[in-house]
Formats: sequence, structure tokens, C-alpha cells
Amino acid sequence: MKKIALLGHGVVGSGVMEILTKNRKLLARQAGEGVEAAWVLDRRAFPGLPYSQRFTQDFSAIREDPEVAVVLEALGGVEPAYTWARESLLAGKSVITSNKELVAEKGDELLALAAEKGVHFLFEASVGGGIPILQPLRESLTANHILEIAGILNGTTNFILTKMFREGAAFGDALREAQELGYAEADPTADVEGHDACRKICILASIAFGSHFYPREVRTQGITRISPEDVAYAARWGGAIKLIGRARRAPDGRAALEVSPMFVPGDCLLSGVNGVYNAVQVTGDMVGTTLFYGPGAGKLPTASAMVGDLITALTQPAGSRPLPWGPAKPELSQPWEEHTAQAFLRVTGMEPDALETFFPGARFLEPLAEGEAAFITAPATQGELDAAQEAAGAAGGKVLSRITVLEGSR
Amino acid sequence: MKKIALLGHGVVGSGVMEILTKNRKLLARQAGEGVEAAWVLDRRAFPGLPYSQRFTQDFSAIREDPEVAVVLEALGGVEPAYTWARESLLAGKSVITSNKELVAEKGDELLALAAEKGVHFLFEASVGGGIPILQPLRESLTANHILEIAGILNGTTNFILTKMFREGAAFGDALREAQELGYAEADPTADVEGHDACRKICILASIAFGSHFYPREVRTQGITRISPEDVAYAARWGGAIKLIGRARRAPDGRAALEVSPMFVPGDCLLSGVNGVYNAVQVTGDMVGTTLFYGPGAGKLPTASAMVGDLITALTQPAGSRPLPWGPAKPELSQPWEEHTAQAFLRVTGMEPDALETFFPGARFLEPLAEGEAAFITAPATQGELDAAQEAAGAAGGKVLSRITVLEGSR
Repeated sequence: MKKIALLGHGVVGSGVMEILTKNRKLLARQAGEGVEAAWVLDRRAFPGLPYSQRFTQDFSAIREDPEVAVVLEALGGVEPAYTWARESLLAGKSVITSNKELVAEKGDELLALAAEKGVHFLFEASVGGGIPILQPLRESLTANHILEIAGILNGTTNFILTKMFREGAAFGDALREAQELGYAEADPTADVEGHDACRKICILASIAFGSHFYPREVRTQGITRISPEDVAYAARWGGAIKLIGRARRAPDGRAALEVSPMFVPGDCLLSGVNGVYNAVQVTGDMVGTTLFYGPGAGKLPTASAMVGDLITALTQPAGSRPLPWGPAKPELSQPWEEHTAQAFLRVTGMEPDALETFFPGARFLEPLAEGEAAFITAPATQGELDAAQEAAGAAGGKVLSRITVLEGSR
Repeated sequence: MKKIALLGHGVVGSGVMEILTKNRKLLARQAGEGVEAAWVLDRRAFPGLPYSQRFTQDFSAIREDPEVAVVLEALGGVEPAYTWARESLLAGKSVITSNKELVAEKGDELLALAAEKGVHFLFEASVGGGIPILQPLRESLTANHILEIAGILNGTTNFILTKMFREGAAFGDALREAQELGYAEADPTADVEGHDACRKICILASIAFGSHFYPREVRTQGITRISPEDVAYAARWGGAIKLIGRARRAPDGRAALEVSPMFVPGDCLLSGVNGVYNAVQVTGDMVGTTLFYGPGAGKLPTASAMVGDLITALTQPAGSRPLPWGPAKPELSQPWEEHTAQAFLRVTGMEPDALETFFPGARFLEPLAEGEAAFITAPATQGELDAAQEAAGAAGGKVLSRITVLEGSR
């Protein structure tokens, strides 16, 4: 019997226990012997559960138990998750986590520590919930230089944008419904401002580029200013608005990371990813474009990814592959102003003819309201688009929206 | 320097050489040291190539070279691929293949032999070309009982069906264009009759159910009889026709495998997979529905999957996980007549009222031509639908088409 410990018995943690119980026989076959949670750490007591006697509030009991080979961390947040993950690794235990904040802030350090101790630090569940994406990126796609990763990485915002698209709902109303259905938290900031998606694109980019990217260095824009009019224009253009986390390899090899709502063309599968689902599109120099889709959050999907990692930790030797990434290299990041992009703009107070002098090559869409113009710019850098927008503003054009276009990559 | 041998310098084999050359540094980093093809076996000579002196026509030179640790097989067909794969494994060399025929016919035997010899037998490239699907299924999703796999597994037929859908083209015309573009072979039988897709769903089902499934035992129907009218009805119904390879877990635990054109609903991502792309939808009891999408064939995508496996073989110990599958268990297969399904039917010579007595619960679509009726049946077994069709036929109703519906699984 292989013994593990679970930190946190919330949504995801209780899902892990459910899988360990329901699929006990399957897991024993996969792991070569039975798998059992010897400890469950939580501040709360759960007296009604069949495993209620395994609960503890004392992490040191887990750290000091020599029979525990793997610690599954499902607490969320940087502390105490970081301290306990670190101590577990130092004690020679593998660590599996679903905690994107922890990985995005401390991934390089914990990976190096795990390698030093000859154990695993795995976190498939931290990006895309149940979707297998990190392992394919690290293993099946290793023959490729990754050119671009673009993903719908947050289910809450995708639910809201889907609602806005299908029903013409306003952001606030769609958010309220997401909260009523339990898809959004009472404080939805981390989701709707893009912070959650940002942590995930940082993890993906760290694997793709081999060095750590910190969320605080990534320009991150949420969906709170997306209006029903913007959504209607996206439909008229033939696509949809999605909150996209993107990491591109610039021609000079630098990494261009950003999180923002984007116009996604209708022939890109990402435009058809709706509700709380997530999807990650990965383009490699040899394979071309692939896409991974599935439930991006939720109890059992996220727990499924953690238990998948657990089987890997129990059966595979650690350290047979090179470290997925090392310390951050700030010079590797291309500043946002230098990113090349096309953008959708909606402007009042200026005629198309005048706008074209500021935005040469603009392709105008049929306006949805009198007195406004809407167009897709020619490719430029974001800095150039900033300057053009400022100049048009000085000449009386009021920019109501500017939304980057995700170029068709199929 | 790690030495490998390549069998077959056709489309895929030359792609492998291209990746080994172009991404040499990346691969050296991934493998821990450089990787080099010491031998390339082909009946033809390629005098102009920088590695032309590595060519041989003598397999025994490869088998007897103790420095060759991995053999990559890209010949296609069962022989001589089977003999050489077997001899390579017997000589203690790992084998990587893109050959779905080989794996679908001999997979259980070669897997057992590889395990016995402590080496790898890997075949990510045999299903879905460059799409990572077998490894995620075997590793990331191990916490799940797989309930259903449904995939667009053949690019040629998907190109043809996309053409028929978008342009109303007839099957023969779309096939001709596929041949002109190099997407279909001069003898397109294996593609258009579904045999290629059948080999791939057998491989996927073998992993999902843990025992070998032979293509000859799977009811396989191609797309040659799909008419523009059928395609138009699918659009009217709100979806598209796709050639689907499917393996479902029946409530009694048996496996229901089939290959056939299906009506795919518009809200299922598979309906938006167009052209030569492939996609595989995997439903697990814990994770729910996931989907893997990408280029299902082609030189570099397929070679990308082979080289990904190569890095795995060079860095991971063999045999740390249980065998993906063992010998066939014929009693595990649910006969096609017992599969539950809904179907689309197009009938002439019988009014809806009369049809409803044979197909109770039928939902009629607005007919596209006078004198015909089109409807979706209520769920039944394929055997029951056979019987109803026969009875309706005896009463004067002529069935022009019957196409299974892929139930919405999102």
C-alpha cells in the first residue's frame, strides 16, 4: 500500500479523496499497488466522513511520517502552500499541486529543489483543470520549438463572455448569473481582471521557453470593460470575444506574453469553446497547430489531473528529463509595446476618411450605431497603435474600445 | 552521441531526418546528449542527401549494431515492418513506429515482447499524426475509466466531407480534388472505406479497455455512399456529417466499437474540425469530456510525434508503468446490433404518419425534396433499427440513407 498525504479538503481536495475511493481498483492497477491517503490536513473537521480519523491540523505529522512518499497540495494561495511544499520536498517527498499561484510564483525554485532531492514536483492540474496540457507539452511535443500558445484559461470569464455573446447580456448581469451558479466567487477580481489566466499563461510560457515568467511582469487586462456592443461587433466580424492568455515567440526569439480579451476568428476552434470550458492552442515549429480542450476547473476534473500526476510520481523515476524551466531571464521578455498586433477599434467623433490617416490600411466594419466607426487595423506594434490612438484622440476621435485580434493560426 | 536507426525514408521518415537536423540542439538538450541516425534503411538510394552514406538495404546491419539503441519504423504495412520490429526488440532495441496497421494487428504481441526485453515500444504517431493523444490517455488520464472515445481519425475523408459540406460537392468530385492536392492516394480505399480510421480506433480502444481489438472485428462503414442530400440534411439539423471512429463503454462494461459516418451536432467541437485536421474526444468518468486536435497526418507532424517518442525512449526507463494492453478478449466486444443509437433516416414512398408506426418517437426534419421524409429516430439498438427499416421497406418505404447520430457529449 502506497501512502500519500493530502493538504486541503476543499473542492479539489475532496475530489481527490473521491477518486481515490471510487477508482481504487483502477489506481491500484496503474500504480502497481494500492494507494491510500494516510493524512488529510484541513483546519476544519469532517466528522461524518469514512476517513474522518485521518484528518490533522499539524503539518509536521505529515512531514515526519516516513511512509508518506507523495504530498498532494490543494490549498491554493502562496502561503502556507509554499512553506509546506518546500518542507515536503526537503523531506524527500514528491509534491503534486493544483495551485497555479504557487507554481507561477515559486515554480523555478521548487522544481530545482525537487531535482536536488530526487523527487517529483508536478502540477498538471494548475493549468486547464482536467485537460492534459503540461505533460503533452513537456513530452509528446519535445521535438518542437514552441512558437505560440494561446488559451482560454479561465472558465468564469468564458462563461460570462459566452453569456454576453449568446444573449447580448451586459457584463454585470452575466457576472451575477455566474456568481449565482457558483462559477464565480463573491470577489471575482482574480478571474474577471485576468490574474488567474495570467498565472496560467506564465506556467505554460515557462515550459515553452525554459525560464520562469512572473505574472506581475505580464500586461494583463480583464473583461470588465467589454460591452455588448463590442461583442456584437465581434459577431458581425465573424468571430467572438474570448479572454486569451498568449505567449508568442517573436522573430528575435524573445517571448511576448499578454492576457487580454481578443477578437477570435470563427474558423479558429477557440471561438467555439463556450461556457466554463477551457482550451489551449499550441503551435510548434514541426507539428503545426494543436489544441487541447476540456473542463478547466471543477472538483473531479481538477482532481483527475492531480491523481494522474500522482500515478506518475509513484511509477516514474524523478529527474529523467531535464528541468522544465530555470530562473527568470528578464531580457527574454518582449515589452508589450513591441508586440505586433492587429486591433479592433470603435471610435466616435471621426469619419472613416479621417481615421484612415491615423490608421492606414484599416478595414471598416458596418457600424452598429450612427456616428461611430468600427474597424480592424493593419498589423502594427502595440506602441504604434497607442501613438495612432493618441493622435486620433487629439484630433477629436474618441476611442470607445480597442481589442487585439488573435490572428488565425490554422 | 546517441545512435538510432530509421526504417523507411518516405514522407514520414524523411520528416524524422529533417527534425533531427533542424532541431538538433533542442533534441540534444531534451535527450541529455546529441542524437544521430547511424542508419537509414530504404530500398531506394538518395545520393544527393548530406546523410546519403548512412543508407543501407540490409536490416541485419542495424540489428547487429550494438550502438543502435532505438529503431524508428516508418515503412507502413504489416510486413516487413513486423519482422523487423520484432527482431529489433529481440535484439534489445526500443522501437518507435508510426505504423497503425502494425500496431492494430500486432500491438499486444510487440508490447509484451518489449516488456520482456526491458525496452520501449511506442507509437504516438500511429493515431492522430502529430496530436498528442496516446500518451495523455496512458498518463494524464490514468485516474479515469474511459467511457467514450470518438474521433475524426482520417484526414482524407475529413477533407472530402468538408468539401461536400461547404460547397455541396458530390463525393466523387471531392475525392478527385483530394487526389489532385495529394491528400488522397491513387487507390483511396483504405481511407474512404474507413479501414484507416478503424485501425486507429482499435488502438485507442485497446488502451482504454486494456485488451487488444482487431480491426476485422469492428463494423466499418466508409463515406462513399454519403450524398450531397445527406450533407444538406445534416446542416438543416444543425450539424455536420463526419466519419467517426468510436469506442464506448456499454453499461455492462463491454466495449462498443464502430466506424461510420455520423451526424455530429453543431455544439460538439468535432463538428468544427475541418479539412485534413483530426480530433479525438475522450470522456472519462472523472474528468468529463476532453478533446485533442491537430494535424492528423503529414510529414513533419507525424515525424514530430515519432521524435517525441524517441526522446521518451532515450530518457525514461521502460516498463515503469503496466502494459497498456494485453491479448484480445472477444467477449469484451458488444456486437454492433446491440449498440444503442439514434439515427437519421431519409425515406421515399411512405408518409410520416406511416413511418411513425415503424419508428415511434421519430422527429421529422423539413424535407428537402418532395415525396421524401427525413427524421431522427428515438434511441434504439442498431438491431431494432434494422428490423424497423426492414418492416418499413416491406410496407413500401424505401430507405435512401441511414446515418447514426453522435449524441452530444458536452
